[in-house]
Amino acid sequence: MITVLAGGVGAARLLAGLIQVVDPAELTAVVNTGDDLVLHGLEISPDLDTVTYTLAGAIDPERGWGLAGESWQAMESLRRFGGDAWFNLGDRDLGTHLYRTTRRREGATLSEVTAEITAAWGLGLRLLPVTDDPLQTRVTVETDGEIGFQEYFVQRQHSVAVSAVRFDGAATAAPAAGVLDAIASSGRVVIAPSNPIVSIGPLLAVPGVRDAVVARRDDVVAVSPIVAGAALKGPADRLMTELGHEASVVGVARIYAELAGTLIIDEADAELADAVEAEGVRCVVAPTIMSSPQRSAALARVVLESGVRS
Amino acid sequence: MITVLAGGVGAARLLAGLIQVVDPAELTAVVNTGDDLVLHGLEISPDLDTVTYTLAGAIDPERGWGLAGESWQAMESLRRFGGDAWFNLGDRDLGTHLYRTTRRREGATLSEVTAEITAAWGLGLRLLPVTDDPLQTRVTVETDGEIGFQEYFVQRQHSVAVSAVRFDGAATAAPAAGVLDAIASSGRVVIAPSNPIVSIGPLLAVPGVRDAVVARRDDVVAVSPIVAGAALKGPADRLMTELGHEASVVGVARIYAELAGTLIIDEADAELADAVEAEGVRCVVAPTIMSSPQRSAALARVVLESGVRS
Repeated sequence: MITVLAGGVGAARLLAGLIQVVDPAELTAVVNTGDDLVLHGLEISPDLDTVTYTLAGAIDPERGWGLAGESWQAMESLRRFGGDAWFNLGDRDLGTHLYRTTRRREGATLSEVTAEITAAWGLGLRLLPVTDDPLQTRVTVETDGEIGFQEYFVQRQHSVAVSAVRFDGAATAAPAAGVLDAIASSGRVVIAPSNPIVSIGPLLAVPGVRDAVVARRDDVVAVSPIVAGAALKGPADRLMTELGHEASVVGVARIYAELAGTLIIDEADAELADAVEAEGVRCVVAPTIMSSPQRSAALARVVLESGVRS
Repeated sequence: MITVLAGGVGAARLLAGLIQVVDPAELTAVVNTGDDLVLHGLEISPDLDTVTYTLAGAIDPERGWGLAGESWQAMESLRRFGGDAWFNLGDRDLGTHLYRTTRRREGATLSEVTAEITAAWGLGLRLLPVTDDPLQTRVTVETDGEIGFQEYFVQRQHSVAVSAVRFDGAATAAPAAGVLDAIASSGRVVIAPSNPIVSIGPLLAVPGVRDAVVARRDDVVAVSPIVAGAALKGPADRLMTELGHEASVVGVARIYAELAGTLIIDEADAELADAVEAEGVRCVVAPTIMSSPQRSAALARVVLESGVRS
């Protein structure tokens, strides 16, 4: 069994690699819900949907989010009224949110709805939201004070300086059923190449999760989302710098040192391998840029082969 | 000034006639909200939208509801998950519901949102929901007990026998701002050819509305929704019969006798004019079937010319 701590795009691509090289039934992804939002009355879970759509082969490959072949009639109509259309919701994507919202209002947990949605897409792996309780990543930005994650990430296109990140609700959230057990009982725990602060951070903020990962440190392999000092996508590098971390694989190693026995870094950072190991983390150098399904599968193989206790 | 008590399709067509023959700024429509529902977390106001879309020239002429040139991607996606898709929501139509839901969650009243939506469509008349408070038409059917109006009307295609109709929330609902004043101060009050029980009924159930109409009886003109013993659209005839009324223009005259000094009936019912007048209601015979904009305008002229106090 393999458990992957997952954010959005980077995690989705690594999972797409893993399902090529292991039986999906062996895989559990524990997914960030700190980015979730209620918009226009609809319950939206961006990371869960990105992972689902990617693994279903339905993601839009250009945008990296939402569905391929999407139409945008609802948003165009919303704009007619001057409505808030900064968070783009495609028409087909809306079907997912309509379903999730209805089921939640009927009393289903996010875990239950997620299982129904992944089953409808025919996915073989298990997707677990890290928690079924409210969890909201809140970001303090210079210009506006504390705002929601999507207001920062999408509305302001993560172009404003961040002075603090907080996971509202985390203190009282419980891990979703199966989360702690998956971490405890998997042969391999993987920290996906997601934003350490705002994608993996919320997972670790849910009581019990961090301790469960720490307890498995020797079997935990992290993949650096930072390559040559920059995030492949999103603001991980700037966020790390703004919050006092070094935006490098060494900075990633320091953040994860207590959690992961092994860190996989890209070949572009090979000269930093010793510096990573100086943080007490075994370092594996490999191609980590998942620009094709083949490269995702290759990285998945490295993940599975790395850091096995000898 | 003219005030029209309005349900959905029939009222929308009469209003489309009226705006051809009078300055829309002279017109207020007080619209039924008893059919409103929250579905998938979205606030849906079918009668308000039918009137708006019709007057905007955007209604689908075949279906009689929803927008012309509509696409259905969100519903198709919802069906993938086995979601409740009995209430069809087109993609462009969804934009309206997203906007309304967001604005309501921001604290705007339904009146305010409705004014924004009609302004965005460039409509010149004033559309008022009868109330900004919760009002729900509930229907007791043989098969399932008491259900919501749309469960009866759309989900069961009004094909089950009804034993009772109730307007939940009516007792504590207040008329929306402007409603009572519009009825009191208009030269003409029109009861549109809408279902007397489930379209006009909810309006009259809001405290103060019925009394306001009764006070204007001499200036109130109703248009019969029953032609030759049948409803042109929907279940008005069957509902009237099931609830102990006669499904005829005479039955309509009895329901409205206290409210309307004049009833316009279709030429097909000309032989019932005396029976209508026997109910104490002046009867005007005219073509009432609004199968074209020209016929709507012609009926609007009859409405304006009928029942003027001599």
